[in-house]
Amino acid sequence: MKENEKKYIEISPEKQVLFHNHVDECIGTGRMGLALQKEYQEQLKLVQDKIGFRHIRGHGLLCDDMAIYQESFEGGKRIVEYNFTYLDMVMDHYRKLHLKPFLELGFMPDSLASGRQTVFYWKGNVTPPKSYEDWKKLVIAVLKHLMERYGREEVVTWPVEVWNEPNLSCFWKDADMAEYFKLFQETYLAIKELDEGFKVGGPAICGVDDENWIYSFLTFCREQHLKPDFITRHHYTISEPEQVGHYGYAQLSPSEEGFANLHTTREIMDSFPEFKGLAIHITEFNTAYIPNCPLHDTNRNAAYIAEQLSRLGDDNESYSYWTFGDIFEEKGVPFTPFHGGFGLVANGCIPKPTFWSFVFFKRLKEKDGHCVFRDKNAVVIRLYDGSYRGVLFHSTENKNTGSGYVELIFQWEAEREEYCLLTECVDEETCNPLKIWHDMGEPASLSEKQLQILRDGARPFLCTQKQYSEERKLETKFLLKENAVIYF
Amino acid sequence: MKENEKKYIEISPEKQVLFHNHVDECIGTGRMGLALQKEYQEQLKLVQDKIGFRHIRGHGLLCDDMAIYQESFEGGKRIVEYNFTYLDMVMDHYRKLHLKPFLELGFMPDSLASGRQTVFYWKGNVTPPKSYEDWKKLVIAVLKHLMERYGREEVVTWPVEVWNEPNLSCFWKDADMAEYFKLFQETYLAIKELDEGFKVGGPAICGVDDENWIYSFLTFCREQHLKPDFITRHHYTISEPEQVGHYGYAQLSPSEEGFANLHTTREIMDSFPEFKGLAIHITEFNTAYIPNCPLHDTNRNAAYIAEQLSRLGDDNESYSYWTFGDIFEEKGVPFTPFHGGFGLVANGCIPKPTFWSFVFFKRLKEKDGHCVFRDKNAVVIRLYDGSYRGVLFHSTENKNTGSGYVELIFQWEAEREEYCLLTECVDEETCNPLKIWHDMGEPASLSEKQLQILRDGARPFLCTQKQYSEERKLETKFLLKENAVIYF
Amino acid sequence: MKENEKKYIEISPEKQVLFHNHVDECIGTGRMGLALQKEYQEQLKLVQDKIGFRHIRGHGLLCDDMAIYQESFEGGKRIVEYNFTYLDMVMDHYRKLHLKPFLELGFMPDSLASGRQTVFYWKGNVTPPKSYEDWKKLVIAVLKHLMERYGREEVVTWPVEVWNEPNLSCFWKDADMAEYFKLFQETYLAIKELDEGFKVGGPAICGVDDENWIYSFLTFCREQHLKPDFITRHHYTISEPEQVGHYGYAQLSPSEEGFANLHTTREIMDSFPEFKGLAIHITEFNTAYIPNCPLHDTNRNAAYIAEQLSRLGDDNESYSYWTFGDIFEEKGVPFTPFHGGFGLVANGCIPKPTFWSFVFFKRLKEKDGHCVFRDKNAVVIRLYDGSYRGVLFHSTENKNTGSGYVELIFQWEAEREEYCLLTECVDEETCNPLKIWHDMGEPASLSEKQLQILRDGARPFLCTQKQYSEERKLETKFLLKENAVIYF
Amino acid sequence: MKENEKKYIEISPEKQVLFHNHVDECIGTGRMGLALQKEYQEQLKLVQDKIGFRHIRGHGLLCDDMAIYQESFEGGKRIVEYNFTYLDMVMDHYRKLHLKPFLELGFMPDSLASGRQTVFYWKGNVTPPKSYEDWKKLVIAVLKHLMERYGREEVVTWPVEVWNEPNLSCFWKDADMAEYFKLFQETYLAIKELDEGFKVGGPAICGVDDENWIYSFLTFCREQHLKPDFITRHHYTISEPEQVGHYGYAQLSPSEEGFANLHTTREIMDSFPEFKGLAIHITEFNTAYIPNCPLHDTNRNAAYIAEQLSRLGDDNESYSYWTFGDIFEEKGVPFTPFHGGFGLVANGCIPKPTFWSFVFFKRLKEKDGHCVFRDKNAVVIRLYDGSYRGVLFHSTENKNTGSGYVELIFQWEAEREEYCLLTECVDEETCNPLKIWHDMGEPASLSEKQLQILRDGARPFLCTQKQYSEERKLETKFLLKENAVIYF
Repeated sequence: MKENEKKYIEISPEKQVLFHNHVDECIGTGRMGLALQKEYQEQLKLVQDKIGFRHIRGHGLLCDDMAIYQESFEGGKRIVEYNFTYLDMVMDHYRKLHLKPFLELGFMPDSLASGRQTVFYWKGNVTPPKSYEDWKKLVIAVLKHLMERYGREEVVTWPVEVWNEPNLSCFWKDADMAEYFKLFQETYLAIKELDEGFKVGGPAICGVDDENWIYSFLTFCREQHLKPDFITRHHYTISEPEQVGHYGYAQLSPSEEGFANLHTTREIMDSFPEFKGLAIHITEFNTAYIPNCPLHDTNRNAAYIAEQLSRLGDDNESYSYWTFGDIFEEKGVPFTPFHGGFGLVANGCIPKPTFWSFVFFKRLKEKDGHCVFRDKNAVVIRLYDGSYRGVLFHSTENKNTGSGYVELIFQWEAEREEYCLLTECVDEETCNPLKIWHDMGEPASLSEKQLQILRDGARPFLCTQKQYSEERKLETKFLLKENAVIYF
Repeated sequence: MKENEKKYIEISPEKQVLFHNHVDECIGTGRMGLALQKEYQEQLKLVQDKIGFRHIRGHGLLCDDMAIYQESFEGGKRIVEYNFTYLDMVMDHYRKLHLKPFLELGFMPDSLASGRQTVFYWKGNVTPPKSYEDWKKLVIAVLKHLMERYGREEVVTWPVEVWNEPNLSCFWKDADMAEYFKLFQETYLAIKELDEGFKVGGPAICGVDDENWIYSFLTFCREQHLKPDFITRHHYTISEPEQVGHYGYAQLSPSEEGFANLHTTREIMDSFPEFKGLAIHITEFNTAYIPNCPLHDTNRNAAYIAEQLSRLGDDNESYSYWTFGDIFEEKGVPFTPFHGGFGLVANGCIPKPTFWSFVFFKRLKEKDGHCVFRDKNAVVIRLYDGSYRGVLFHSTENKNTGSGYVELIFQWEAEREEYCLLTECVDEETCNPLKIWHDMGEPASLSEKQLQILRDGARPFLCTQKQYSEERKLETKFLLKENAVIYF
Repeated sequence: MKENEKKYIEISPEKQVLFHNHVDECIGTGRMGLALQKEYQEQLKLVQDKIGFRHIRGHGLLCDDMAIYQESFEGGKRIVEYNFTYLDMVMDHYRKLHLKPFLELGFMPDSLASGRQTVFYWKGNVTPPKSYEDWKKLVIAVLKHLMERYGREEVVTWPVEVWNEPNLSCFWKDADMAEYFKLFQETYLAIKELDEGFKVGGPAICGVDDENWIYSFLTFCREQHLKPDFITRHHYTISEPEQVGHYGYAQLSPSEEGFANLHTTREIMDSFPEFKGLAIHITEFNTAYIPNCPLHDTNRNAAYIAEQLSRLGDDNESYSYWTFGDIFEEKGVPFTPFHGGFGLVANGCIPKPTFWSFVFFKRLKEKDGHCVFRDKNAVVIRLYDGSYRGVLFHSTENKNTGSGYVELIFQWEAEREEYCLLTECVDEETCNPLKIWHDMGEPASLSEKQLQILRDGARPFLCTQKQYSEERKLETKFLLKENAVIYF
Repeated sequence: MKENEKKYIEISPEKQVLFHNHVDECIGTGRMGLALQKEYQEQLKLVQDKIGFRHIRGHGLLCDDMAIYQESFEGGKRIVEYNFTYLDMVMDHYRKLHLKPFLELGFMPDSLASGRQTVFYWKGNVTPPKSYEDWKKLVIAVLKHLMERYGREEVVTWPVEVWNEPNLSCFWKDADMAEYFKLFQETYLAIKELDEGFKVGGPAICGVDDENWIYSFLTFCREQHLKPDFITRHHYTISEPEQVGHYGYAQLSPSEEGFANLHTTREIMDSFPEFKGLAIHITEFNTAYIPNCPLHDTNRNAAYIAEQLSRLGDDNESYSYWTFGDIFEEKGVPFTPFHGGFGLVANGCIPKPTFWSFVFFKRLKEKDGHCVFRDKNAVVIRLYDGSYRGVLFHSTENKNTGSGYVELIFQWEAEREEYCLLTECVDEETCNPLKIWHDMGEPASLSEKQLQILRDGARPFLCTQKQYSEERKLETKFLLKENAVIYF
C-alpha cells in the first residue's frame, strides 16, 4: 500500500478463494538439549496455549549434550550403549504439550564422528560418521526406543529428516553432496527396514545453490530407486546482514523474490514424474537467518511474516518458523532479553509482535469456513455460521510508507442488521514491547516489575464496535498503520 | 475540568503535601456464607494479587448459612452447640490471601431471634436477640474459637463492629436506637471481659439521620463510661435510584456534598473531648447503594472513586469499598455478568474500571515517598529514589464535559536528562469491558471465548515514552478523556 | 471367611467368568447448590483424578438456592424468568472434570409449589407443582438452555430422572403414587416433545414398598403407552439406625438380602414383555441411608462395598454411590471432619477406606482383559498382555471373624519365570484415617499439620515382591485381615 | 545395637542435653548450569517444601556453561564482557525457593585459564587463572551484579568459598598448595576491598592430607594477616570403592573414625589463638564420594546419615549433604532412575530413604524445645508445650545385626493421662523405593504408572496409637528394624 492509500474490497459470501493455511503444522526450536530447561518449557507452553502447533523441529537430537550415544572401553573392548534419560524427558515434555517431534537426525556424536569440525557456540560436530554401521545402529536404537515408549502407531507419524543444510560447509563438511547422498541413502534404507511406516525425507537445504541440490538429490533418488516421503528446504528473506557489536542488521528482501525461489523447488520436483506433487516441508523459515538481528523483535517482522503466512501454503505442506522462543545458544547465550533472537517469544515469556501473526492466522482455522478473499493485505474467511474472520496486514518491507486504509464491503443478507465488530490490533503503537524495552533504557537484567510491564505492553489492543448493515451491505473501515497486523 | 481545559501544574520536589492514602486498609464482601464459593475465592484472589487489602468486612457472620449457632432439643432440654466447620473454611481462606477480617457481628441466628423480620433475598434476621445472655455466649464462643485456632495475638488485631446500619429499620427492627445501644453495650462489655485487647466499635450507620445517631451514640457511651475503640459509618453518593426492569439508575451526587457530610461526623466526634481524634472507619462506601446500578460498571464510576480515594483519608482511618466482587445475593442471584453489581470485579473474574483506580492508588504506597501535589485531578508522589508516580483522574460526575489536558512541569535537578514515562490509561476507549459486553449483545451466559475477550478488554492501555528534561524542567502532557483514570 | 480360614483358588487363564464392572458409571453428590463451593470442587477433583466417574447425580437442581426459577410481579402482572448463572457455573465445573450430569428433576421452586412441606436442613420443597404448565415450561427452559450452551448432541446423552424417592412421604407429599405418575407423564411427554433424543426415566424409589411401586409404575406406563428409557431405584443395606447424640449407629444387613431385593425389580420388569431387559440404574446406593453413620468412615464399609461392586453389575446398568464427598447438608453442617458422612472423601480432602474400593475396581477396567475368577472374596482379571489384576476383600459384615488367608494358584505358561507382585492393602492397620482421628482426640478444627497426618495415613500400603513360577504354577499367598481390601 | 537387644531409656523432662541441630543450614547441588533444568527445579522444590534448607552450594558458578565470562576480539583488541542472563535465572529460582547461595568460586572459564586440564564429564577447567587481575575482575563483577540485583544487605549474607578441593590434583592442577594460597589471598583481598561485609573462607579440602593443609593454610593466613571468616572442608565415610560396570561398590567406615577425623580439624584450628572457635562449614558430606554408588539409595544410608545428623553439629556450624537431587553429570548422564547418585531425591522426584532422615531432623527444630536425650540410637526433644519429638535410628554400618528394641520411659506429670503417639517409620519394608525398582526389573525408562508406584512406595509408614501414663510414667516401645529411621 502507498501512503494514505484507500483500498475498497468487496466481499461476496459465496466466493471460494484458494487458501492453504498450514500456520500450525510445525515450529522450530533451539537444540534438543535446551528442551530440558525450565524457561524453554515455559515459553513453549505459552506458545502451545495460544497457538498450538502440531510438530516441533530442531537440531541436536544426537549431539553429546543429549548423551544418547555412549562409547566406553573396558579391557580394550569398545562398548557402545545408548542412554535415553534426557531423550525421554524431552519427548515426554513435548507430548504433554501435544507436540509431535519432526525428527531431524543430526549432528554427529563426537566419538562417532570422522572429524573435529563443529558448528555453533555449542559445538555440534558436522562431519560424517566414521562408521555408517554405527550411525545406523544409533538411529535405529533411537527409533526403536521411541516406539517402545510411545507406541509404534504414534511414532511412525513423526517425520524423519536426514541432517540439516548439507549444502553449507559449516553444517556438513565441505558441503560434500555425494557424502550427503550416501548418508541419506544409508539412513533411509535402514529406517525403512525397521518399519516401512516411517516417513523419511531430505535434503533440508537452505537457499544456497538450492536448484542444483534439489535437482541432483531427486536425480540420485531416481537412480537409486529411493522414494523419499517428502522434500525439505529452508526459506530466509533478507540481504546479507551487517555486523555491529552484538547485532547483525539486515534489509528485508521483497517477498515476491522469496516466493519465486520457493516455486522453482516445486517446479523442479514436478518435472520428475515420480516426484510430482510430493510434499514440500519448509523446515525452517524466518526473515533473517541470524539469531541476533533486531528485525526479529519488530512490528515490521510481524507484518512481513503475516504476508508469508498468507501465501506459503500455496506450494508447501508446512513451514516451520525458526523458532518458537529465545532460549537458543547458536551464537552464545544472549546478553539481554531483546537481542534480535529468532523466537516468537522473548526470554521472560514476552510475546513479540510476530507471535500475534501466528495467533491470528491460527484463529482463521478454528472453525469450519472457507476463504472469500485474499490479497497482499488481507485474508478473509467466512465461517459456517455466516460470520467472518480475517487478518489484515500492511507489510512495508524496507520502506516507510505510512498508514493505509482498508474498507471491507460485505454483501449482507439482511436489509438492516446489527452486528459486533471485534478487532485486535498489533502495530507500533499498540503492541511494541521492543520500544518499551528501549524506552526503559535496555536493561539486561529485568526486575519482576519491568518484566510485568513488558508483558502488559506486548498484547494486542482489543476493541469492539456495533455496526449495522444497510441496503444489504455492511461497510467496515480499518486504519492500517505501517507494519500493522489486525485480526477481526 | 471544563471541556478542553488545559491545566498546568508545577511540581517542586521538596514540597510536602498532606495525603493519607488508606486505599488498601479494608474491602467489603458479600455475606460470609458466600466466601465458601469457588468463584468468590477466585475473584478475591485476583483482587489480593493485584491490590492486596489488609482487612475484609461483610455481613452474615452469625447467619444461619454459616451454621455456627445450633439449637436442638433432647428430652425437652435445649442444647446449644457451636459449629465452626464453615467459619474455619472462610477464615482459613482469608488468611491464605493475607486478609484479616473486620468482624461485623450480625445478623441474628433464627433460633436466637426475637422476631421473624428479615432483610435481603438471603433472609438475614434483623431482630434483637430473644436472650442477650445467649447472644453474648455466642459472640464469646466465636471469638474464643478464633483465638484458639489463630492465636490470641493475631485475633485481637481483628476489629469488631457491632451490627450493621441500625439506623435503618430494614437492618434493625424499627431502627430502635435504644435497643441498639443496649446491644452495643452488652456486646462491648462481654468482649472486653473476654480480652481487653479487642478493639470494638460501632454504630455502623449509613447516612440517614446520621448526625443524630452519632451524637446520641457518643452521648450514650459517655454516660455509660464506654470507650469504643473506633466509630464506624457508611458513605454512598447518589441520588434516589429509579428502578427500570432489573436495574436501578441513579445520578451521582457532587462529591463535595459527601465529603462535607463525612466531615460533620468528624466534627461531632471532636466536640466530645473524650472522643476527639478517635478513629473513624468507613466500613462501606461506593457510589450507589444498590447492587443493580449500571453506574458501578462504568468508567464514570472509576473516575469518581479515584477522587474519593484521593480525599477520604483526610478524615478517616479506613474506607472499605463495598464490595470486592459480584458474588453477592442481596437482591438475588444476578442474571448476567454485568448487572451493576457492587464489585470491583465482575463475575467471570473480569476487572471493572474501578478496580484499576484501586490498583493505581495502591502503587502510590508501594515504595517510600511523599506527596508533592494533590488536587481534584491529580495526586503526585515523589519516591525516595527521585522518581515520580501519580494518578490523574477526570471525574465528570453527572455531566459530560469532554476531554481535558493536564501538563505536569517537574523541577528537575539535571540540566538535560533522559527518562522514561510509563503511563497506564483507563478510559472509555481503552478499558471499558461494559461497552464490549453491550457490543456483544449482552450475553447472559458467556462462552470461554467471550470471557477471554472481556478480560482482554478490561486492562489499562500501557505505553512508554522517552522524554528529556530541559533547563532543569521536565514537561509532560496528558490527555485526560472524560472519566479517565491514568497512572504514571 | 471364617477365622484363619485358608482358601485355595486355582486360576486358569482361559476361563471366562461373567463380570459387569460399572464401578465408574455414576456417583452421587450433595445438592447442586453446594457444587459452587471450593471444598466441594476440590473433593470432586480428587475423586475424578483417582477414580474418574462418567456421570454425577444429586438433588436440588430446581431448588431455590440454584435460583433458576424467578417469579416477580410488576404492575400486578406475574413475570417468570429463568436465571442460569449458577447452573452454568455448576455444569461448567462438571464438564471440566469430565462429568456428565445424570439430571434429577426436583425439588419444587417455592413459588411454583402447591404446598409448604420441605425436606432436609436445606428445605427442599416436596409438593407437586401448583401448575403443571409452569413446571413443564421450567423443565423445558432448563433443557433448552443446556442444549444451547453445551450442544444438542452432548446434552441428549445426559439421562433425565423424574424426582426422587416419591415412595416416601418426606420426599413427595403423601407419597402420592397417582400424583407422581402424573408428574412423570407430563414431564416425560414434554421432554420427548422437545427432543426425542433425551432418555427419560423414573421412578427413583427407595426400597420401601418397592415391588408395588415398580409394578404399578410399569403398569401405568403400559396403559399410557409411555416408554421410559430406563428404570431407577435406590439400594441401602442396613437395619434401622439408633440415634445417639450426633450419630446414628446401624447394623449391616447380609449382602445377600440386598441382592435378592434388587433382583425382584429385575424380575418384575422382565415380566412385562415391553420392558424386558430395560436398563436399571441404581441412582443411589450405600450401606447406611443417613449422613451421620460412623460406619461410612470405616474399613468395614470399604470391604462391604467392595463386595457390592463385585456384584451390582449383574442386574444393573449403573450404581451410583451416595456420595462422592462430605460437603453435604441434609442433616445440617457437620461439626467434625469425620462424622459418618456419605462421602468417599472426608472434608479436608481425606480419602476414606471405601474410596480405595472404587479406585481398585476402576483399575480392573483400565486395560482390556477378561474376568477369570469371581467369588465372595476375590475378582481376578487377566489382561490382554498376560498379566493379572485383582481385588481381594474380606467383608465381615457385622461379625468379627478375624483374618483369613487366600492363596491364588495361577496356571503359568513358563516353566520358571520371575515376575513382580505389587499389592496395595487397605485394612484397619494400614489405611484407617478414622482411627488416627480418634487417636488424635477427635479434633473438630484440624490444623494444617493434623490434616497432613490424616491424609498421609489414608493411603494404601504398597509393597512389591519378586516371585517365581514353578512347574507351570505360580502360587501367591495373601493375608486378608478383617475388613481388608487388597489390590494386586 | 546387637540383635534383639533391648534398650531402656529414661527421659527426664528437665534434663538439658547438648545438641546442635544444623540439619537445614546448607545442601549441595550439581553444577550451577544444571539449575536451569526443569527436573532439577522440581526436585529442589520438593526438597524445599518438605525440608527447607537455608543455603545451597555447588560447583561451576564460573564455568563456561553459565556463560558469564565472555572474551572476544574486535580489530585485534580483546574485549571482556560479563553475561548474567543465566546467573539471574539460577539465582532468581533459588530465591523463589527461599535459598541463599553458598557461593563457591570456581572453576576457571576456558579463556581465562592457564591450562587445559579439566575435571568431570562436563569438563570444568581446574587450572589457575592466566591473569589474576582478570580473575579478580570477574569475581568482583559477579558480586557487584548480585548486589545490584538483590541488594547489598542480602548479598553479603551469602558466604563465599574459594575453589573446591585444591588438595586433590584432579580439582586443582598439581594440588599446588602455594598456588591455591595465592588464589585465596588475591580473591579474599579483592572481595574485602569491594565490601568488608562479605564472609570469605576456604580451603574447601576433602579428607586427603587434610591435617597438613589445614595447618598450612592457617599458618599462611597468620603470616599474611588474613582473617578468613570461616574454614571449610568435606567429609566422606567409605572405604575405596570397587568399580563393577556402571556402579562403584563401597563399604561404610565406622562413623567414629569420621567424627575423630573431623575433630582434628577443630583441634588444629583451636591451637591457633586467632582462629580458636572460628566456624567450620562442612561444605560437602555424604557416605560415598562417587555419584554411582548404590549405597546412596538404600535404607542403610538413611540410618547412617541419621547418626551423622545427630552429631555433626558438635564441631561444625553447617554440614551440606552432597547433594539434594540426582540431576548431576559428573560421571555423565545417568542411565537409570536409581543409579547410586548422591541425591536425596532420585530422578522422577522420588524421595530416597535418606530424604526422610533430613525431614525428621528438621522437624526437631520446628518448634521451641530442648534436647533431653541423645545417644547412638536416639535424639529426643521436649517441646515448650510439654510434648516430645524424637528420631530413632539403628545404623548397622556394614554389618547385619537384625532388629533391636528401644523403650522410652518418660517421666510424666499426670498420674494417668491419655496421649497420642504418632510414628513415621522408614525401614527396608516400609519405605524402600530401591527395592521396588529392583522388583520391577530395574526399568531405565519409567512409565507414568511406574513412577507413581515408586513415589507411593517412597513414603514413611505412618501410624498412631493411644497410650496412657501410669504412676507418672509413660512407657513406649519401638521395634527398630535394621537400618530403620523412625520419627515420633
